[in-house]
Amino acid sequence: MLGVKFLSVKINENYLLLQNNYLFIEIAKKVEKFQEENPEKDIIRMGIGDVTKPLTPAVTKAFKDAVDEMADEKTFMGYGPEQGYSFLAEAIIKSDFGPLGINLSVDEVFISDGSKCDTGNIQEIFDLNNKIAVTDPVYPVYVDTNVMAGRTGSINDDGMYEGLVYLPCVQENDFVPELPKKSVDIIYLCFPNNPTGTTLTKSQLAKFVDYAKENGAIILFDAAYEKFITEKDVPHSIYEIEGAKEVAIEFRSFSKTAGFTGTRCAYTIVPKELKAVDSEGNSQSVNELWNRRQTTKFNGVSYPVQRAAEATYSENGKRGLEENIGYYMENAKIIRDSLSEIGLNVYGGVNSPYIWVKTPNNMNSWEFFDLLLSGANVVGTPGVGFGPSGEGYLRLTAFNTLENTKEAMKRISDLSF
Amino acid sequence: MLGVKFLSVKINENYLLLQNNYLFIEIAKKVEKFQEENPEKDIIRMGIGDVTKPLTPAVTKAFKDAVDEMADEKTFMGYGPEQGYSFLAEAIIKSDFGPLGINLSVDEVFISDGSKCDTGNIQEIFDLNNKIAVTDPVYPVYVDTNVMAGRTGSINDDGMYEGLVYLPCVQENDFVPELPKKSVDIIYLCFPNNPTGTTLTKSQLAKFVDYAKENGAIILFDAAYEKFITEKDVPHSIYEIEGAKEVAIEFRSFSKTAGFTGTRCAYTIVPKELKAVDSEGNSQSVNELWNRRQTTKFNGVSYPVQRAAEATYSENGKRGLEENIGYYMENAKIIRDSLSEIGLNVYGGVNSPYIWVKTPNNMNSWEFFDLLLSGANVVGTPGVGFGPSGEGYLRLTAFNTLENTKEAMKRISDLSF
Repeated sequence: MLGVKFLSVKINENYLLLQNNYLFIEIAKKVEKFQEENPEKDIIRMGIGDVTKPLTPAVTKAFKDAVDEMADEKTFMGYGPEQGYSFLAEAIIKSDFGPLGINLSVDEVFISDGSKCDTGNIQEIFDLNNKIAVTDPVYPVYVDTNVMAGRTGSINDDGMYEGLVYLPCVQENDFVPELPKKSVDIIYLCFPNNPTGTTLTKSQLAKFVDYAKENGAIILFDAAYEKFITEKDVPHSIYEIEGAKEVAIEFRSFSKTAGFTGTRCAYTIVPKELKAVDSEGNSQSVNELWNRRQTTKFNGVSYPVQRAAEATYSENGKRGLEENIGYYMENAKIIRDSLSEIGLNVYGGVNSPYIWVKTPNNMNSWEFFDLLLSGANVVGTPGVGFGPSGEGYLRLTAFNTLENTKEAMKRISDLSF
Repeated sequence: MLGVKFLSVKINENYLLLQNNYLFIEIAKKVEKFQEENPEKDIIRMGIGDVTKPLTPAVTKAFKDAVDEMADEKTFMGYGPEQGYSFLAEAIIKSDFGPLGINLSVDEVFISDGSKCDTGNIQEIFDLNNKIAVTDPVYPVYVDTNVMAGRTGSINDDGMYEGLVYLPCVQENDFVPELPKKSVDIIYLCFPNNPTGTTLTKSQLAKFVDYAKENGAIILFDAAYEKFITEKDVPHSIYEIEGAKEVAIEFRSFSKTAGFTGTRCAYTIVPKELKAVDSEGNSQSVNELWNRRQTTKFNGVSYPVQRAAEATYSENGKRGLEENIGYYMENAKIIRDSLSEIGLNVYGGVNSPYIWVKTPNNMNSWEFFDLLLSGANVVGTPGVGFGPSGEGYLRLTAFNTLENTKEAMKRISDLSF
């Protein structure tokens, strides 16, 4: 048998610039090792932001009815529009944006199988030389997908990629990022924030919109957690800021609100007002670029899944969502209150299912992670995994069951720091 | 209100190199116009390769049962592995590769929501300077995704992108591509072929595997239509060729075989033997690169969809698939026989649901398309839309109903060319 004589195909070397272990893989390994060494311990996972409440009856009914449609020649659905069905886009516009006074057209809504995909893929339609800003700490997908595309260069000893602009969000600035000091082209913002659980007020967000207008920048606004907002004056959509359609793309997801982490549906708003330029200075429609990307590389979301997502907007569907969100936010309150009571500084958890805990006694993130794992058998996510400004913090999520959440807080409260 | 002062964000200009209209959009426009002008005409669509047979009972039952699991706290499934569940990977290995004597491990199988996504995204993990070869005619996604990535340069007047190597598949060479004359790094092959419906024998495919080994190239092998193969000596998988695991990635889909065009599931095989190099000449695992790509930018396929796909491998599921495929292949035979009878040269349709028709009287593809649309109210796909060597051909698909297929053939037979 003839073997390969030599290798000629070159890899995308930017992949080698990625840090070797994706955060959650490293956590999983540590947890696995601990469990092996302590098989009798009942570990409570409050690390990965995965939900525990099942799909609601309204959603499962619509889901199964749509499967039945697929079983009948007369109602069978083949290829759908890559952008998603208009029945779902219309429900989204009516229910998610109508009450906010935001008008959108169906072809500004792009339905997808996840915000991870959308926030990861969106950078493809922009030039490699655009300057990118991210908040720090940050959802790793924004950074890693730009690393893979070749926009960042290498990572420094301080944990920052050379080519990125980092906007720290820390205790000292109340987790409100300052505007970029250098001029940037694209800014990723996620509010309510993952991982800190903190929010921006309308006027704080408006400053970013103004910055974008002044500097010709685009904001990639991840609103995956907007349904967890309980306080007034916290914007649910960036389009609540006047003129934001000219400068912002918004990402939303059914994952955390409707329990769709395993069902997979999300959407992205790309307003027609949003423009970027080619090298000759001609204005180009970002909506058309994204449409071209999606029609070329994507084939739409499973039809029954889109029907299931549509059902989240029915009366019963909405009630089911509210109940689930209320359940998780009760957990969030328990976490906040319990940890505050033992003297820890906690953030988030009011408009978000994430609680961001300052480590006690100047422990670093992984030390605190190890302490919680070994001492309380509770898994959090080390803040430093989200970026250098996350060092000295740890993220807990409110997505576990009420029972587990209470038990975890009891165990942590029994620890002495 | 403050407007945007100037635009600074630059677009990915490679998008401007794409031909303006995606083939199927142009067809849709022509058909819409014809229907508007002739509202009484009953148009039969044999253009886009979309199926018409519903999901089989075994599949819908598994699909709905899995939705029920999602409705119960005890069996609810949240985030799954980005690579897909091992229950499905194991069923794939056992049923699709076991009978061929091909051994694979679960972590060589990457389950996705479509071969369009996979064949479109795969190029991301390779360097932009790799030289790419495609057969001509070709499934447009291979070309367009490389254009968007910046590997091709501009399109010439002859309809070919400057930076691509085209391997013509035409009547004169029995639709068997010659090996690239220039050295190339990556070769896209799709057999049974879309659009021509033709196949390679094992020895013909083995020549490409040998070429890849000699030249250190990688073959991206799209086997989306392998279940339509009826003849012996036509390989179902490139891994039937000895040593192909060292040089090939294989793409497969549930779309056409199990009626999943609207349900969305596919998979990609990336053998661990497959290596590429970095700029220092170090060997790198392509499997690890693809794994990193998928874990960073994708969140796995909907759990109920994966259960539905698994059910295609059950006894009842397999029988359902065979019935559907048999139904379509009966259509293919009718198309082949009818068009041959009226003196047209037809190819494909024996191991494939696609029939590739040579236009009569030296008509070009669009002229023949227009003639069939206006004269027989039948929609085909102009061959030239798949590349310059498709000029003078037209693609028909066997995916319509038996009744429509017969009616379409009757109408075409009544035309005089």
